[in-house]
Amino acid sequence: MTTFNDTFLRACRKEDVSHTPVWFMRQAGRYQADYRELKKKYSIIDICKIPEVCAEVTFSPVNQFALDAAIVFSDIMIPLEPMGISFEYKPGVGPVIHNPIASKADVDRLKTIDPGSDLKYTGDALGILKKGLNIPCLGFVGAPFTLASYMIEGGPSKSYAKLKAFMYNQTANWHLLMDKLTVAMTDYLLYQQESGASALQIFDSWVGILSVQDYREYVYPHMEKMMQTLKSKTDVPIILFGTNTSHLLQDFRKTGPDVIGIDWKTDINAAWADLDHSVAVQGNLDPTLLFGEWSLIEQRTKAILDSVGGRNGHIFNLGHGILPGTPEENVRRLADYVRAYSART
Amino acid sequence: MTTFNDTFLRACRKEDVSHTPVWFMRQAGRYQADYRELKKKYSIIDICKIPEVCAEVTFSPVNQFALDAAIVFSDIMIPLEPMGISFEYKPGVGPVIHNPIASKADVDRLKTIDPGSDLKYTGDALGILKKGLNIPCLGFVGAPFTLASYMIEGGPSKSYAKLKAFMYNQTANWHLLMDKLTVAMTDYLLYQQESGASALQIFDSWVGILSVQDYREYVYPHMEKMMQTLKSKTDVPIILFGTNTSHLLQDFRKTGPDVIGIDWKTDINAAWADLDHSVAVQGNLDPTLLFGEWSLIEQRTKAILDSVGGRNGHIFNLGHGILPGTPEENVRRLADYVRAYSART
Repeated sequence: MTTFNDTFLRACRKEDVSHTPVWFMRQAGRYQADYRELKKKYSIIDICKIPEVCAEVTFSPVNQFALDAAIVFSDIMIPLEPMGISFEYKPGVGPVIHNPIASKADVDRLKTIDPGSDLKYTGDALGILKKGLNIPCLGFVGAPFTLASYMIEGGPSKSYAKLKAFMYNQTANWHLLMDKLTVAMTDYLLYQQESGASALQIFDSWVGILSVQDYREYVYPHMEKMMQTLKSKTDVPIILFGTNTSHLLQDFRKTGPDVIGIDWKTDINAAWADLDHSVAVQGNLDPTLLFGEWSLIEQRTKAILDSVGGRNGHIFNLGHGILPGTPEENVRRLADYVRAYSART
Repeated sequence: MTTFNDTFLRACRKEDVSHTPVWFMRQAGRYQADYRELKKKYSIIDICKIPEVCAEVTFSPVNQFALDAAIVFSDIMIPLEPMGISFEYKPGVGPVIHNPIASKADVDRLKTIDPGSDLKYTGDALGILKKGLNIPCLGFVGAPFTLASYMIEGGPSKSYAKLKAFMYNQTANWHLLMDKLTVAMTDYLLYQQESGASALQIFDSWVGILSVQDYREYVYPHMEKMMQTLKSKTDVPIILFGTNTSHLLQDFRKTGPDVIGIDWKTDINAAWADLDHSVAVQGNLDPTLLFGEWSLIEQRTKAILDSVGGRNGHIFNLGHGILPGTPEENVRRLADYVRAYSART
């Protein structure tokens, strides 16, 4: 086994690095031939729950593209099952909930989880990964808001009218739900860290649909509490990510993460400057650019790296997860290019 | 007939007004009992194509809520039919295209439209509306980008991967498509103005999915051309609207509209200040707030009006269209409240 490559962790702490570290959200997934082959034998839930298979899927892109970080294969919906939420993945739709949350009784029914037993398979997978990897492995959860959005809407949504009606009209129940999710996801993150995760990412993928006022009133207190609890119990870096969040980045920062993930909409360095460069940043190539020709991918990647200008605290990533159908060759060239172009001289 | 109420037009031109004018995107629609009743007899396409029915639907919310502007009932997909695009509205999905655009041949096949014959029903409806209304009536189109997104994706999309792959990999065909749509939509807007529309709104609803770079490269030149042509041929106010566009507002302004529509994400006056108050602004209450209790709606509406502080050039609206299921009573109270609270003393 080669020396441990801690470039990613150093960047999270804004320390000097030999190159800009690179990993990709959803780097293990349907765009990979290997993953599609494995999916013939195992469902997504199987992959999440069989530690050896989970580890194999997690290793795969790391070996394929020589990345600077791994992320344990799982899905943000997985920890909802032991809480009592029943769901399935509908092809072309996403997760569909069989028993959506509509009332106080529904919230009351949600169970407290004990990650060490209820989600032991993730811990076991992280144990295997820790032994087998010479790079850091991330653990992750969906943020309480994003999970609540699925639980109330019953699946993906465009307007999120049900979710917001619940938030506005059953505000006490909303906060009860967010409390329960905050405790459960905090515990699950800490369990992942104890099991071998060297960094933790919180995916608040859909929170960008909220106005600043709604974020502050209905979400911020829970995120602040989550972050404070995490910070009091572990010193591994915490990454907070969402899409369409340019109006929320100041509030994201105030919750206290070490790293903020930026989507592809804005210049990453302009967003970083607005945050006074006080945190590290992760991003931000448009994942759909990987469907383009290499010359365009290269041009846009170079623009990101040039904009950041080698400032300490940048982790290269896409602005959202790798999409199904993305050519693997483009992912490989992108990772190679970032490492080579960003190499500190 | 009472005196013509030109408050909306005066606000578009940033002139003094007696109160902040108010109208709502999708103010005629499924949330209205009257509309649902009419839909038992007519399809959306029928309503768009039978001038008397179209006018009746357009009048309905104006009479119901005493609004300061009407908007001719139609749908952004309607002018695509004479261009040769075949589509249907799938309940719960939205418009689905039977012959999506995938190649140069598909773009070449698109027909030039003559609005005066191909879309005469809209002109006829606007003629009826002009006679019957004592407020201005808006005409509108979908912006070329948003229309192209449906034409290439074949319907609504989450990632817009097909659209962007087309844009990146068939760039010449993309610009050809955008050219054709720009000409057609410009002609259609001018026809609506000649037929009685006193203001024109361009809905670029989904353009916010693009990065600033992509907007500049693939969209801006067409929008600039559209705006320049409109400005050279008419002096009615032009409103440019999109969602998730906080990163694009500076570029929106540069295209040259009189009014920019702001979604519900950001403080409208902060966005306006970033635009140096050089245009008028329209917005920006979250449409889902109308599912909340009146006290919350009032509080947020007051916050918008207080933030703007009575500055000339504000048109009150939602940050996107009224959603199905919205209580009509809340729409009525909101319109009444805006007029009363904003009355200049």
